[in-house]
Amino acid sequence: MAESFSPIAILGPGLIGGSLALALRQRSPATEIRVWGRGEAALEAVRALGFAAIVDADLAAVVTGAQCVALCTPVETMPELAARITPHLSAHAVVTDAGSVKGSVVADCESILGERFVGAHPIAGSDRNGIAAAAADLYDGATCVLTPTSRTSAAALETARALWQTVGCHLLEMSPESHDAALARTSHLPHAVASALAATVARAIPDWPQLAGGGYRDSTRIALGHPDLWTGILLANRGEISTSIAELTEILQNIRAALESGDANTIRALLAEGCSARQKFDVL
Amino acid sequence: MAESFSPIAILGPGLIGGSLALALRQRSPATEIRVWGRGEAALEAVRALGFAAIVDADLAAVVTGAQCVALCTPVETMPELAARITPHLSAHAVVTDAGSVKGSVVADCESILGERFVGAHPIAGSDRNGIAAAAADLYDGATCVLTPTSRTSAAALETARALWQTVGCHLLEMSPESHDAALARTSHLPHAVASALAATVARAIPDWPQLAGGGYRDSTRIALGHPDLWTGILLANRGEISTSIAELTEILQNIRAALESGDANTIRALLAEGCSARQKFDVL
Repeated sequence: MAESFSPIAILGPGLIGGSLALALRQRSPATEIRVWGRGEAALEAVRALGFAAIVDADLAAVVTGAQCVALCTPVETMPELAARITPHLSAHAVVTDAGSVKGSVVADCESILGERFVGAHPIAGSDRNGIAAAAADLYDGATCVLTPTSRTSAAALETARALWQTVGCHLLEMSPESHDAALARTSHLPHAVASALAATVARAIPDWPQLAGGGYRDSTRIALGHPDLWTGILLANRGEISTSIAELTEILQNIRAALESGDANTIRALLAEGCSARQKFDVL
Repeated sequence: MAESFSPIAILGPGLIGGSLALALRQRSPATEIRVWGRGEAALEAVRALGFAAIVDADLAAVVTGAQCVALCTPVETMPELAARITPHLSAHAVVTDAGSVKGSVVADCESILGERFVGAHPIAGSDRNGIAAAAADLYDGATCVLTPTSRTSAAALETARALWQTVGCHLLEMSPESHDAALARTSHLPHAVASALAATVARAIPDWPQLAGGGYRDSTRIALGHPDLWTGILLANRGEISTSIAELTEILQNIRAALESGDANTIRALLAEGCSARQKFDVL
């Protein structure tokens, strides 16, 4: 039996879309995969991988006849893309996405696409970009948050569930707002902080690279992410991220005050709180 | 020919002292290794490894006759330890340390030990603690900062250089103050930030563990470090760390203001600055 999400049109041949395609080829070989992208070089790389039935820069050619469309482009491009695919969608085609922000994306896409849109965010990624970094196991064991609303059709939700489960995700459903409050703190704030940390070090210490070790390496790794991509993510979730920066800054100011007054107990309590929280995390 | 640092008395059988001993056994088998510690359990673990000629909780028994003493205990314990070993030191015995802070440690230890003390900081570590986490290759390829002063004897500096080079370190010499300004930003600030980040997430998002991915994992990893150990480090370098918190906070406030005004250019410029700084770092 053909999967409900086949043929699937993957829009955006980067790390996220490319990994979705590679995972489907491996785990659902009967699924027809189609890929759309703007850049000829990326499309050529997809063609070379040989798994896609259609690889094209013409949106209509890729979307027409698809049962599922996955938006795997930067979040700020999604509403425009939703509008452009609308005339070509089959009656029951489902549209999902893989964006790191859900509130604004779901509101915009739902207003254009209606009940067929199911917001999704597979929590998996890399500081590398592009199809060259794509991996068939990127989603294996990752949480995928689905954010259906009162408008979402039950059939569309079923198809989105089947798709993200097929590529290895554990599913979790919550509101777009709850998603954005959580991801602001678990992902977007750490990204802003990693960038600010790398800038702080480089501005103050000219010869820092030989004076940094594994702590610097890990705590700043995500600053390697693509600046354009992350500018879009931070702006799309600006309210929650702004609040979370204020929360973090308050803790840092408490540490600073404790350092200046030599208050060991306050410092130890904060370090112990961070340590014990971090111990609860056990990603594979 | 026997090494100038043999016999060596390693004070503190934890990750740092244990790794120093394991590295010496591998790279300088003729060196006589002695280990002092307070806890019987850790000393028993050292004895079981079978590489030490003397393993004892009696400081005099370990230090007497040693040509080199390495202080591998938490930074705040070093001045007291320096005072306690002084009566037992041979005329030409050299004392070095492995503390993450140099200004206060060097000032205190030098005032007690004089020209024989050579401050050192091998920039290597782990979020794990104790002899069980020790590894013969911990220092392999790491930078070791030596902080001799105008008081340090040339012969003591030569012995300290030989020791840290033997275990695989690249040597770098600078003043205790320059070291502390640099490490405040490359190591101590990231630690405080990782702890504050883990606390921010846990306070705001009750079900955060299933909503965090690789970015959270890496950017908060060092929060797993021992709270007591790191309270001592942060307090010992409080002036520079407090300044660096202010530097970081200013950048975060700029990001926050840019988010609130929707100023994409400012955000992109900051993310690009962090990304390009981080690209200069290439640890093994």
